[in-house]
Amino acid sequence: MDYPSKVLAKAVDEISGLPGIGRKTALRLALHLLKQPNSRAMGLGNSLISLVNDIKYCKECHNFSDFEICDICSNSKRSDELICIVEDVRDVIAIENTGKYKGKYLILGGKISPMEGVGPNQLNISSIEKKLNDGKVREFIFALSATMEGDTTAYYIYKKFKNSGVTFSSIARGIAVGDELEYADEISLGRSIVNRLPYNEKD
Amino acid sequence: MDYPSKVLAKAVDEISGLPGIGRKTALRLALHLLKQPNSRAMGLGNSLISLVNDIKYCKECHNFSDFEICDICSNSKRSDELICIVEDVRDVIAIENTGKYKGKYLILGGKISPMEGVGPNQLNISSIEKKLNDGKVREFIFALSATMEGDTTAYYIYKKFKNSGVTFSSIARGIAVGDELEYADEISLGRSIVNRLPYNEKD
Repeated sequence: MDYPSKVLAKAVDEISGLPGIGRKTALRLALHLLKQPNSRAMGLGNSLISLVNDIKYCKECHNFSDFEICDICSNSKRSDELICIVEDVRDVIAIENTGKYKGKYLILGGKISPMEGVGPNQLNISSIEKKLNDGKVREFIFALSATMEGDTTAYYIYKKFKNSGVTFSSIARGIAVGDELEYADEISLGRSIVNRLPYNEKD
Repeated sequence: MDYPSKVLAKAVDEISGLPGIGRKTALRLALHLLKQPNSRAMGLGNSLISLVNDIKYCKECHNFSDFEICDICSNSKRSDELICIVEDVRDVIAIENTGKYKGKYLILGGKISPMEGVGPNQLNISSIEKKLNDGKVREFIFALSATMEGDTTAYYIYKKFKNSGVTFSSIARGIAVGDELEYADEISLGRSIVNRLPYNEKD
């Protein structure tokens, strides 16, 4: 495709480098920005530059943060005894949105995936050791994807630290609220029968 | 949704202001940029800023351009006698991709749409008058959307300039190449019968 302007072509090239955005969508977005006041595109452009230049990573949990220690890790009302091990920041946001968790987090930054060339050394596993040495943790909760990579990662961490004296647990797998049994997959349904819970009228 | 960093929240806000991009996709894109080398996001950010600051509009056809007169208008191999009237730059790109048109263009910048508050005064209709005064044009070709707004715009322009001595034509409507008649809409099929063409074995 031949664009009438190099400036436009460059913008389309850059936008279409984002995942899930093709050249037609990129052109549509560029034309949209050109129809808006200039401040709109300048705001977007500057926010992207500031994103990669100004963002920090929390030293404790590896979450994104504006400070050295993130709001969750520096919150004294949250328990230091519970550490939820997640893959990335989206999982933290999802769990925080439930309002049901009052411990802290540790972000691995991925999961073990030989297919994608991600081994244990690329993940923040040394931080688990550091948390253990601090001596405050009582329980690590795995909140990883219910995939082979997620299970492998949990198993690797469990095997490495199982003799450290802390408890390891995993978020419950089962039938989601609102699901009909008929359409549930066999593995989830099977696990939910094996790991059945005492009936609780408040649930 | 509560983001762990204001810089991240600002970027997600800005990205999700683009049409067709929600907050979840915006977060995914921001996290993607954070995983890439910083130069990636800086390149994208700077290209967007440069897009709105450095782009020019061709004085002749209102296309985007890096110069005062765009490459198409300044190309002496293209005919000044044929002017194709289109809605926006995407239509120019689409027609140029066919390689079948050797005239010039005039970009209206939209179509008459009372629903969206776009009247003839918001469009580059005065440029048609200017082209007529230059005296080089022999034929205007309407290449507008086959919608009520497109038809209204063509009719408005035709009515205003029909006594100027130039020809007005419209791109052919009919059955697209590869279409099965069974699934064609009645209006296109009806028009294609009424406006049937002499059989040409080269087609």
